[in-house]
Amino acid sequence: MNDRNLEKQIKFIIEIDKLKQVYRKTKILDRTRHENDAEHSWHLAMMAIILSEYANDASLDMYKVLKLLLIHDLVEIDAGDTYAYDTTGQSSKKDRETSSAKRIFSLLPEGQGLDLYTLWEEYELQNTMESRFASALDKLQPLLFNHLNDGELWKENNITSSMVIERNKHIALGSESLWEYAQRIINTSIKQGILESSSTT
Amino acid sequence: MNDRNLEKQIKFIIEIDKLKQVYRKTKILDRTRHENDAEHSWHLAMMAIILSEYANDASLDMYKVLKLLLIHDLVEIDAGDTYAYDTTGQSSKKDRETSSAKRIFSLLPEGQGLDLYTLWEEYELQNTMESRFASALDKLQPLLFNHLNDGELWKENNITSSMVIERNKHIALGSESLWEYAQRIINTSIKQGILESSSTT
Repeated sequence: MNDRNLEKQIKFIIEIDKLKQVYRKTKILDRTRHENDAEHSWHLAMMAIILSEYANDASLDMYKVLKLLLIHDLVEIDAGDTYAYDTTGQSSKKDRETSSAKRIFSLLPEGQGLDLYTLWEEYELQNTMESRFASALDKLQPLLFNHLNDGELWKENNITSSMVIERNKHIALGSESLWEYAQRIINTSIKQGILESSSTT
Repeated sequence: MNDRNLEKQIKFIIEIDKLKQVYRKTKILDRTRHENDAEHSWHLAMMAIILSEYANDASLDMYKVLKLLLIHDLVEIDAGDTYAYDTTGQSSKKDRETSSAKRIFSLLPEGQGLDLYTLWEEYELQNTMESRFASALDKLQPLLFNHLNDGELWKENNITSSMVIERNKHIALGSESLWEYAQRIINTSIKQGILESSSTT
């Protein structure tokens, strides 16, 4: 056992506990509180296990998909959660998150830190089937939650259906089936009056 | 796309959101609140990714290790968290958790539900290298947290070092290196006066 490496790894494991205190806009489904990034990442990993059959590419490396989902929000320990429809926040997001990734992954032994940084970058670049499927789930989950929470967040932030479609259409790059399902959620939400249809604005 | 299957899978994904409201005895590291099972499962999965090199068996199926860790606490949605040193609770735990596993995994399409139930059982049986490594992490994490939280939980529950050793020695079955590290944490905790040495009682 390399003690110096283990010491660094334990330091990293302690550091990432902070992800449990990074809260998202979305509430959990009993609506008593906001969802945090750590439990959100767990939920996405569970969705990947359950919904893998709907990925566009049937030969995905599922260990990689889970790693991408479990680490992709770690950068929010420093950068915070940036709301999907916050255009100002989105413009500075990349720089803030890159700095954070460099700091956090450099806590690890060099080779391992670089591996995880590269994985995080792969998620951001969206140039592999694994990162596209992972990202599809990261979009589907809040869409499903907003629908189940009666569109509370959509109403609060004046979000219309065309904004939701624009934000979520990339689901199709990871899973056409799940994008088809997502469109059904959007249409049902419009019919239920919990999401404003853009054609009426 | 099989709509009926997807409907069941989404129902399962919604149901397991409840894991975010199952709170453990352990507090998160800023000590402001207790840790919930969903974020705990995420943390264990991260530890598996980071610490895989210390597993006794170098050829572990890491996708399986992550699946075991991500699902192993789902049964606590019905059965609740049973404290490691609660002997009364531990005696009824198996029956409560088996009923819960049957209910929760049967929400899924039949084949998939059976696959996950079998995985959950594998974790409980501890008869594979993957389940032993997963369980080692599930023991190491609260040990590390109790140490970092100044033994608050040990003191509250009159836990002595021999009880901690008895509870955690199975870490060696998944990782001898991590058991060696765990013993160092235990010894340091005794020296710091945050864990009572059994020899003095």
